[in-house]
Amino acid sequence: MYSGSLAMVTDFYEITMAAAYHAKAMNDVATFSLFAHDLPPERGFMVAAGLEDALDYLEGFAFQPREIQYLASLGRFRPDFLEFLAGVRFSGEVWALPEGAVCFAEEPLLEITAPIIEAQLVETMIINIINLHSTLASKAARCVLAAQGRTLVDFSLRRTQGLQAGMAAARSSTLVGFAGTSNLAACQLYGINPVGTMAHSFVESFGDEIAAFRAFAKSFPDHTVILVDTYDSVAGLERAIAVAGELRASGHRLVGIRLDSGDLVGLSRQARDMLDQAGLEQAMVVVSGSLDEYRIADLLERGARVDLFAVGTRMGSSADAPYLDLAYKLVSYAGRPTIKLSAGKESWAEAKQLWRSLDANQRIQGDLLSLRQEQQAGTPLLAPVMRHGRRLEPEPGWKAARQRFAQEVLTLPASCLRLTDPLPLRPSVSPTLASLQERTRLEALNRQKI
Amino acid sequence: MYSGSLAMVTDFYEITMAAAYHAKAMNDVATFSLFAHDLPPERGFMVAAGLEDALDYLEGFAFQPREIQYLASLGRFRPDFLEFLAGVRFSGEVWALPEGAVCFAEEPLLEITAPIIEAQLVETMIINIINLHSTLASKAARCVLAAQGRTLVDFSLRRTQGLQAGMAAARSSTLVGFAGTSNLAACQLYGINPVGTMAHSFVESFGDEIAAFRAFAKSFPDHTVILVDTYDSVAGLERAIAVAGELRASGHRLVGIRLDSGDLVGLSRQARDMLDQAGLEQAMVVVSGSLDEYRIADLLERGARVDLFAVGTRMGSSADAPYLDLAYKLVSYAGRPTIKLSAGKESWAEAKQLWRSLDANQRIQGDLLSLRQEQQAGTPLLAPVMRHGRRLEPEPGWKAARQRFAQEVLTLPASCLRLTDPLPLRPSVSPTLASLQERTRLEALNRQKI
Repeated sequence: MYSGSLAMVTDFYEITMAAAYHAKAMNDVATFSLFAHDLPPERGFMVAAGLEDALDYLEGFAFQPREIQYLASLGRFRPDFLEFLAGVRFSGEVWALPEGAVCFAEEPLLEITAPIIEAQLVETMIINIINLHSTLASKAARCVLAAQGRTLVDFSLRRTQGLQAGMAAARSSTLVGFAGTSNLAACQLYGINPVGTMAHSFVESFGDEIAAFRAFAKSFPDHTVILVDTYDSVAGLERAIAVAGELRASGHRLVGIRLDSGDLVGLSRQARDMLDQAGLEQAMVVVSGSLDEYRIADLLERGARVDLFAVGTRMGSSADAPYLDLAYKLVSYAGRPTIKLSAGKESWAEAKQLWRSLDANQRIQGDLLSLRQEQQAGTPLLAPVMRHGRRLEPEPGWKAARQRFAQEVLTLPASCLRLTDPLPLRPSVSPTLASLQERTRLEALNRQKI
Repeated sequence: MYSGSLAMVTDFYEITMAAAYHAKAMNDVATFSLFAHDLPPERGFMVAAGLEDALDYLEGFAFQPREIQYLASLGRFRPDFLEFLAGVRFSGEVWALPEGAVCFAEEPLLEITAPIIEAQLVETMIINIINLHSTLASKAARCVLAAQGRTLVDFSLRRTQGLQAGMAAARSSTLVGFAGTSNLAACQLYGINPVGTMAHSFVESFGDEIAAFRAFAKSFPDHTVILVDTYDSVAGLERAIAVAGELRASGHRLVGIRLDSGDLVGLSRQARDMLDQAGLEQAMVVVSGSLDEYRIADLLERGARVDLFAVGTRMGSSADAPYLDLAYKLVSYAGRPTIKLSAGKESWAEAKQLWRSLDANQRIQGDLLSLRQEQQAGTPLLAPVMRHGRRLEPEPGWKAARQRFAQEVLTLPASCLRLTDPLPLRPSVSPTLASLQERTRLEALNRQKI
């Protein structure tokens, strides 16, 4: 398990470029912009997330002495550079979309302005953090849409790509409306509601299914969700109902039953009927097992009666689109706008602002990308969050982000919300930015001809 | 960033089940088996990886006092259970496939035998760790196959699902034959070779492309790979060749050039020709940009001339198959074999051994799953690696695993090695295991009828 500094979690070239800059005494102020060139075809919108971790990272940026020693051992760096590197902290400014905002390709999620060595050194982790959280939040948001108001919880931890992805899955899914997570560490860290039922192994270890149900109910008389499919789901349901009767007799209430395999449409309907007939109208039908937004939509369309979806691996790994094509591009250096002209990967020059206009129905009419200092119609979405390497305000946290997402999702056009073949928006570009871009392109080409 | 214990990184139900077991004083010895029900359709084999981290986790398993306090604050657990939990360490036995072994669905990657509470508490992280590493190693192995002997390096860190996934991508790709990684933290932790070139931003910050190339070459006269596609790849190549001439004049040598966009087939051929004509036969053509095994195979098939592939996001997130369907199933408890009968998810009872037979060409003829104590033909693949909660031997590390994989990959039938529509093997099952399974199934069903 890694125990070094986060500064070391970087592509090696960030260090070699820093060394080359340092040797040339080149360290003027640069602005980098973080955005997606395109959305994955399966996504009609993105949810901005991860800013809290990103700002933590920037505030804590520093190499440890043994890391500088390791770099020295590579035999490629001058002592004066290593001494400089040991003292580097992040002293820059950050503008960002707030967590929970919905956004699209070409729209900056974050812009960093700092001496170029600092701004370059933080590239890898800034992309990594925002990509991880925004990828998972965008996926979880689709599960929320598919569930049409039903409760969702996160069961993904066992097959996320590492523990950090598990923490991000718990936080990001909560941010878009999930009601809880099975991830205990995330519950403690973020103050999320812990949820869980029981495993098949628990039932098997007793051998006798009803004995297992009774043992669990005895320990947690007010928090029992019984897993009924270890051997035969209908027989399991009957036993769960018997245990529910015993709980009721002692003044408690069965929370629900869980189905994890088989014909979930038929079984969920049968479970609902059996529970209702036993006077257990309040007991929830919980469904799990390879769920994602497609499967949830399909189950509901085919008439499944589900109160709570426990969503796992496919959400927690964003299985159909496991990354966003986020890039962190230099947009100005030493007061000069910069762009990359590589085929198909052009970036917009200069620090920017993003403006959103809503129509009469409070749906997004369009986003507009402008230079940061321009004044345009609509609401400006990017705001300063860090200056001189310090947060301007304490992080609002996932609860504020959750409120924001709940409001912003209502502004998305139906074409963005579709689960299949969604049509994301693209921002238009202000005339000022467009003409600056054209000037910068010509200038860049001309400069190469010298 | 999470700073608690790894014991807390668990599904909440592991704790509630432990509490229910504890309340019943049920803590006999259990064996759990970790295996994949099926491989993703895109995979013809798996590479076992992650054991080193898994054993670290087991040896270090312990809750911190503030975590026990947090659990107490939930108001669901009895003080005697919390006191017990505070003292839990992992005291069990582990049998496992060595890292770098190739394997298939239904084959145990790892089996844990311990008092059931311990064995259950470690479930979530054991699955998470082995899933992460084996998923990424299996993906990276396909890139190695596609590259047909050309050098590969890992550039994935910026878009892995978190830093831990980035560390695992670096280690797992090295394990299957990659020559280096851009991930500096992984280089320090694992002793991997750091690699890197330069970013487009570096070129843009100078404005003048050749000035950027010269500055880098001056700082790293023996380690320079020039990125040529920021503005125009062919013009960039000409400038790189000019700088290579300057390096040569001062007794140094350009390591290579990197192409990251555009028609990589045509550009790589042109680059090779231009470099050769300039007497730079030793300078490498490095290619990057949305590479994976499919793209590498396609580039080579269409005649690209590439010396080194820098593979990023799609490898580091295993984009086409971002998880393995690993399950951790109870196979015996208190001396009694156990199975789950859930539709489509049946598991094999009891602690097992896996035997491999090779044919006359040293290719796998077949794998056989038996009870652990059986003696069968072939080589036994599972070996004890931990007893009484302590490793039997120091971890052999990724270098030994790399050697193993290099040998084992040669034993895979062509049908497993195909990049598209591969046909993975399935183990056969010994008659003894098959009849035990049948008896256990009947017994489980009968027990439910009581």
